[in-house]
Amino acid sequence: MMQGAIRTTSFSLLRAVHFSSSVRIMSSLVTIPPPPVLLQPLNVPHRVMLGPGPSNNPPRIQAAGGLQLIGHMHPEMFQIMDDIKQGIQYAFQTQNNLTLAVSGSGHCAMETAFFNVVEKGDIVLIAVKGIWGERAADIAGRIGADVRYLSKPVGEAFTLTEVEKALAEHKPSLFFITHGESSSGVLQPLDGMGDLCHRYNCLLLVDSVASLGGAPLYMDKQGIDILYSGSQKVLNAPPGTAPISFSESASKKIFSRKTKPPSLYLDLKWLANYWGCDGKPRIYHHTGPVTNYFSLREGLAILAEQGLECSWARHRENALKLHKGLEELGLKLFVKDPELRLPTVTTISVPIGYEWKDITTYMMKNHDIEITGGLGPSTGKVLRIGLMGYNSTQPNIDRVLIALRDALQHCPKNKM
Amino acid sequence: MMQGAIRTTSFSLLRAVHFSSSVRIMSSLVTIPPPPVLLQPLNVPHRVMLGPGPSNNPPRIQAAGGLQLIGHMHPEMFQIMDDIKQGIQYAFQTQNNLTLAVSGSGHCAMETAFFNVVEKGDIVLIAVKGIWGERAADIAGRIGADVRYLSKPVGEAFTLTEVEKALAEHKPSLFFITHGESSSGVLQPLDGMGDLCHRYNCLLLVDSVASLGGAPLYMDKQGIDILYSGSQKVLNAPPGTAPISFSESASKKIFSRKTKPPSLYLDLKWLANYWGCDGKPRIYHHTGPVTNYFSLREGLAILAEQGLECSWARHRENALKLHKGLEELGLKLFVKDPELRLPTVTTISVPIGYEWKDITTYMMKNHDIEITGGLGPSTGKVLRIGLMGYNSTQPNIDRVLIALRDALQHCPKNKM
Repeated sequence: MMQGAIRTTSFSLLRAVHFSSSVRIMSSLVTIPPPPVLLQPLNVPHRVMLGPGPSNNPPRIQAAGGLQLIGHMHPEMFQIMDDIKQGIQYAFQTQNNLTLAVSGSGHCAMETAFFNVVEKGDIVLIAVKGIWGERAADIAGRIGADVRYLSKPVGEAFTLTEVEKALAEHKPSLFFITHGESSSGVLQPLDGMGDLCHRYNCLLLVDSVASLGGAPLYMDKQGIDILYSGSQKVLNAPPGTAPISFSESASKKIFSRKTKPPSLYLDLKWLANYWGCDGKPRIYHHTGPVTNYFSLREGLAILAEQGLECSWARHRENALKLHKGLEELGLKLFVKDPELRLPTVTTISVPIGYEWKDITTYMMKNHDIEITGGLGPSTGKVLRIGLMGYNSTQPNIDRVLIALRDALQHCPKNKM
Repeated sequence: MMQGAIRTTSFSLLRAVHFSSSVRIMSSLVTIPPPPVLLQPLNVPHRVMLGPGPSNNPPRIQAAGGLQLIGHMHPEMFQIMDDIKQGIQYAFQTQNNLTLAVSGSGHCAMETAFFNVVEKGDIVLIAVKGIWGERAADIAGRIGADVRYLSKPVGEAFTLTEVEKALAEHKPSLFFITHGESSSGVLQPLDGMGDLCHRYNCLLLVDSVASLGGAPLYMDKQGIDILYSGSQKVLNAPPGTAPISFSESASKKIFSRKTKPPSLYLDLKWLANYWGCDGKPRIYHHTGPVTNYFSLREGLAILAEQGLECSWARHRENALKLHKGLEELGLKLFVKDPELRLPTVTTISVPIGYEWKDITTYMMKNHDIEITGGLGPSTGKVLRIGLMGYNSTQPNIDRVLIALRDALQHCPKNKM
């Protein structure tokens, strides 16, 4: 019986004849031809990625990204997701049960936070000191939140006093602030922020996409209620997953909301189950990005092996070396207060007389090094250099300084 | 001057001393230790993925997933995104300009469609004949659509007459239907559906996640206004990106809507720019999943090289061989009408006397082959076997039939 099924040569030939004729019929309907560009090989150049991210992936993470797939519901996959969960708990310094990675970029994690924690009409206070606050306000506004702003010029950070005044004035249920403001190069101090928010009956939501693993961050000790990050910065994994975690208070708000979140894809009732956070058997929600999970798991494993403290110290040490080298080139660091400088992304004021684009283009063309200009409100004001995770090394500091000196010597300079 | 920056040995040593002491201070605050599980190596078993997806990735796509990153805004990345766009236009058989891949799974593409095309209060008609219609209704409901249903038992398809009656009754602005209903194994005929919808001033939204590349589909000729798919089925790329395309009429509705879509991440005004569809210089929206784009590009390139017609014919031919083999094993195909059987995912009625879970577990344990049970309304009713893209081969047909015969011989059978 089986043999008949497996050795169906004559049957197979018959079908082939049958289908050749169907193909002929069908092919007259295929009017869009295969694009010639897809018949050429994929060509990906090698770059030293010293912008604000994505950063380079070490060979171990590249290898993970090239592994064969397993199923999104296989026990081995759930084990890897559990590994990721524990890795995020370590990286975030939290014991939160509701800890997972969303299937998207940092923006997707930002939406996951707002979509689940905020309901229509809720007052949310957004600290804007660069692009991320602007994006957060956009997202909150779309879902009907009553958005209030606390703003500061690009390159500065907020004080507890300023935040307290705004909390007292607006009485928000959620306060958003960015830890590592990669558009300005500012590291926002967070000590005391959680207690302050809680005194005003407000949840604290922190964006750590550009800072996680590169600067001290203690979710539980600092009283952060919702914290998210990205995979493609210090964790050196490809973009496509974003770690996120929720405190007990945040979870309570999420699971007692009156309306469904606007997104099924990002609904934490579903995601909590998919990530084994609700103690129930896991049921199908969506197909997670399997190979991105492999890579993220390895990124978190490398961080666990190195230790958070070593990673923080190395990022700070290398940032200071870079800062010194930049000042020796006659360049001006954009963030005035040394204590507020983000160790992962350094901003330099665009040197007088130069076009920023000339410099980044020159470095890419002649040195295969990416550094970038500003973003959002810092556009045109700064150049940005990232030293993140695997890329935070002395040879990369040397490389970027040599390339930058070369660019300054060769790019056109207008006399002012 | 540069030398000073690059050879900062004494400076470096000083900082190292300084930071060792800061690390000691900081380490007292690190209370969550590195998880031991992350200190063990990543372990990914090899599986023959003959379920409804994800399917196995051919070596060429695995290699693409393991490439080093480039930036999400590098010109080479934009070229690869342009390649993807053209590849989707070919696979969808469309000339639509607004064609791109969203940064998420098939569910994310489904949300992209509803979030952008539907506004609060819009009447949407959802054809439910399996899980995908249920999910679509859930998504539409969350954003305030007036959701109407057209339902059919699992295993059947809709006729034009049934659809016309419902269009006349509900007067929806959008009609959702699944082409390849992977939960039931039904291939929904689409000829005439577009014209019908347009006569009723309604846009046609089609889910082709499980059918694209495996069964004839002509977006433009069939008058489909919104079509989306997934990366992890016939295209054999990892999950994490989802092709989607919009007709002129759909684009008009999207770009003349009165309210912003609920999601910034999925807002087509932004995505159209990011994917070079609006003719303007591309500006930063989100960080796309760079390596997933590499893989998707290669999946589309393989389809372009093989040709759509050959791919359709091969899937059909292999499905028929599989069906014959299954019937020779005494199994019953779940979809009665041979014309309605999906070539990519075959459903079998769970054989009488067996627990479906025993069979799938046995095949995984003893043959490293994934086949699955039902999903949503087909749970407990069917077993599902996928032969998709790279996996649609004679050796895989042989493998799955041998393993299934073995399972039927060794799994417990209750006498009825």
